[in-house]
Amino acid sequence: MEGEPTLRLRIFDLNCWAIRYLSRRRRERVRLIGDTLRQELFDLVLLQEVWSEQDYSDLKVKLASCYPFSHYFRSGVIGSGLCIFSRFPILDMLLYQYSLNGYPYMLQHGDWFCGKSVGVGMGVTAPLLSLSLQLHAEYCRDKDAYLPHRLVQAWELAQFIRHTSKAADVVLLGGDLNMHPEDVGIRLLRGWTGLQDAFAEATRFEGCKNGCTLVPDNCFTDKSELLPFPLGIRIDYILYKAISSFTVKCEELKTTTGPAPGMNIPFSDHEAVMATLHIQRQGQPVGATLGTADLALADVVTEARTEVGVGLRAAQQQRYSWGRMAVLALLLLLLQAAAALGTLAGLATEQPFPKLSFCLLAFLALGVLVLATGLHLFHTMEVKILHGTEDQMRMVLRALQERP
Amino acid sequence: MEGEPTLRLRIFDLNCWAIRYLSRRRRERVRLIGDTLRQELFDLVLLQEVWSEQDYSDLKVKLASCYPFSHYFRSGVIGSGLCIFSRFPILDMLLYQYSLNGYPYMLQHGDWFCGKSVGVGMGVTAPLLSLSLQLHAEYCRDKDAYLPHRLVQAWELAQFIRHTSKAADVVLLGGDLNMHPEDVGIRLLRGWTGLQDAFAEATRFEGCKNGCTLVPDNCFTDKSELLPFPLGIRIDYILYKAISSFTVKCEELKTTTGPAPGMNIPFSDHEAVMATLHIQRQGQPVGATLGTADLALADVVTEARTEVGVGLRAAQQQRYSWGRMAVLALLLLLLQAAAALGTLAGLATEQPFPKLSFCLLAFLALGVLVLATGLHLFHTMEVKILHGTEDQMRMVLRALQERP
Repeated sequence: MEGEPTLRLRIFDLNCWAIRYLSRRRRERVRLIGDTLRQELFDLVLLQEVWSEQDYSDLKVKLASCYPFSHYFRSGVIGSGLCIFSRFPILDMLLYQYSLNGYPYMLQHGDWFCGKSVGVGMGVTAPLLSLSLQLHAEYCRDKDAYLPHRLVQAWELAQFIRHTSKAADVVLLGGDLNMHPEDVGIRLLRGWTGLQDAFAEATRFEGCKNGCTLVPDNCFTDKSELLPFPLGIRIDYILYKAISSFTVKCEELKTTTGPAPGMNIPFSDHEAVMATLHIQRQGQPVGATLGTADLALADVVTEARTEVGVGLRAAQQQRYSWGRMAVLALLLLLLQAAAALGTLAGLATEQPFPKLSFCLLAFLALGVLVLATGLHLFHTMEVKILHGTEDQMRMVLRALQERP
Repeated sequence: MEGEPTLRLRIFDLNCWAIRYLSRRRRERVRLIGDTLRQELFDLVLLQEVWSEQDYSDLKVKLASCYPFSHYFRSGVIGSGLCIFSRFPILDMLLYQYSLNGYPYMLQHGDWFCGKSVGVGMGVTAPLLSLSLQLHAEYCRDKDAYLPHRLVQAWELAQFIRHTSKAADVVLLGGDLNMHPEDVGIRLLRGWTGLQDAFAEATRFEGCKNGCTLVPDNCFTDKSELLPFPLGIRIDYILYKAISSFTVKCEELKTTTGPAPGMNIPFSDHEAVMATLHIQRQGQPVGATLGTADLALADVVTEARTEVGVGLRAAQQQRYSWGRMAVLALLLLLLQAAAALGTLAGLATEQPFPKLSFCLLAFLALGVLVLATGLHLFHTMEVKILHGTEDQMRMVLRALQERP
């Protein structure tokens, strides 16, 4: 601390739950979020689940005077839902889409259609790399079929941060990670990048108990989801890391506690997370925090690799099943073609040809063939990505174990 | 040049054209490539279009003694086809998939199924970021429907290099860019990253005229493709850039000239590109080459943005057409449902109900509905990505123009 001036940075992070036609009292809540952001001047606002571009445009107009810089990240069928508002210039933008993000046929879960991504904004005051993101949702904790996908996302995110953060002085990540603090994905992300958890590091904390961001006090949360967790769960995070000769300290962390301050409805079904960070230049570069915890990190990577392996085997099984189904449908079609040709050639004329059921069967077989082939291809891609991630993790493990 | 030792790096780059069942004399050529690589010791080998994992495994076994480090990048349905062999340790790996890569229904072009990506290897001697990659193929130069996709890829690649290269001392890129040297995509990539073209910078050159890598002398090239270019075209590149206090010089660049040295067949339908680079540490950091050429760069970005805009409008048109088709098919289905219900309810009993043609029509409508909906969703994603890229380019243009 050589008397260098301190930069105080106030960050607001919120999963807005603004799905057109589906989210309750959406317009009212987006208006409320806009009003609050205008009143309380933050430096950086990271929003997720702003699915409608109209909502973003409305916010942009409303916040133009106090947050002159903003960006909306487009991807997937619906969009990424990510946007950034900033008081300081955003110099460059990058969108990284995860390789895996659920299944297109799980319409009720919808993750695939959103093209879940990390939005990266470079720039502002000190070279600051700020990321806004959301990982694949967890729909059933006990039998979590999406765990391998979420782990691949956590891994890709960690790799992405490692590779892009060298240009920055401070990395800042805010978003809905859809993982509890002790989950393997969070440990993997934090261990492999050295990111620190603002909640754990904060000097002062104010808000829901244990920093929870999905709480029963919020009138929009699904109470049945929270039954095993009566106090709520913490899945929205602000994580940070100083890269070069800087130190970052979290002075204060706050969450909303159900209804928005002074209002009768909450901002969203998630609580907002607000952090005040102190960034200061230091004489010597901060030592690598990674080296000291190599062994623990190797354990986490091993655990994650095991889960990815489980996902890989499930995906291989799916690929095989759908491939077999496609072959069967093709055989049926060929059989039908042979029968039709036989009839045309005048064989078996003693019996009437059942045209209607024949056509129905042919169309059914064709439909199954197309569907099964599509799913076979999709799971083939899934296998490649899971396999590739496993390879990368193996390489990292070897490197970790070979370090003196 | 403060008497620091020079690192001499020999690089081999080849599009191997090793497609199972389709590429002629594949096994023989892969064997030949392996033998040559073993004889002539390069430091780094960047291969593309190694579509079969078996070919990679064979190469790996054969090259294990001289190139102990290697990686195969998995993505897409078929794979990325990219692999790296290195004499020096590969410390970290990253695969970046482009957001856009052709259309799944253009089966004859196949790009979509390959999951075209950039494979990034970090590590080796001096922190060296080496990229192996391939961009979307050009199938018709005069009416190039894939130009916007290739431009989005070139842009994403440039952004990716800008954001990941800060951790490296030298960036090295080898691959089949599927673009002629004067094309807008190459100018965009080079202008926005500051990468230098080994062919243009080489002190000594030996090989095909103008450094061409698709030449009529190669017995595997499609002669009709090369009719407008009797000398051949140059689409395979080795590009490089020194980041921090290093200088890189290209001492020598070579290409093969049809048949492999001492053999009667070529390695591939592309010529191999071999570069010898000199890397030396310098006292002061190399000045930014970007600032000096801001105006020219702004022109290139504007040109690229115009092309992306053309692609955007085409994609919007497609999205609209397929959406309309889906709505029409849905209407037809509803109409049929109404007719069927009417018949069941005993209306219009005086006429026989044409079951067969009714069923055929219903299945046809259903098929069209599914297909059109799928394509509508696909083009929606395409619109989002093209729109997002246009946004990013606009932001960069503004930043370029606002610079003093």
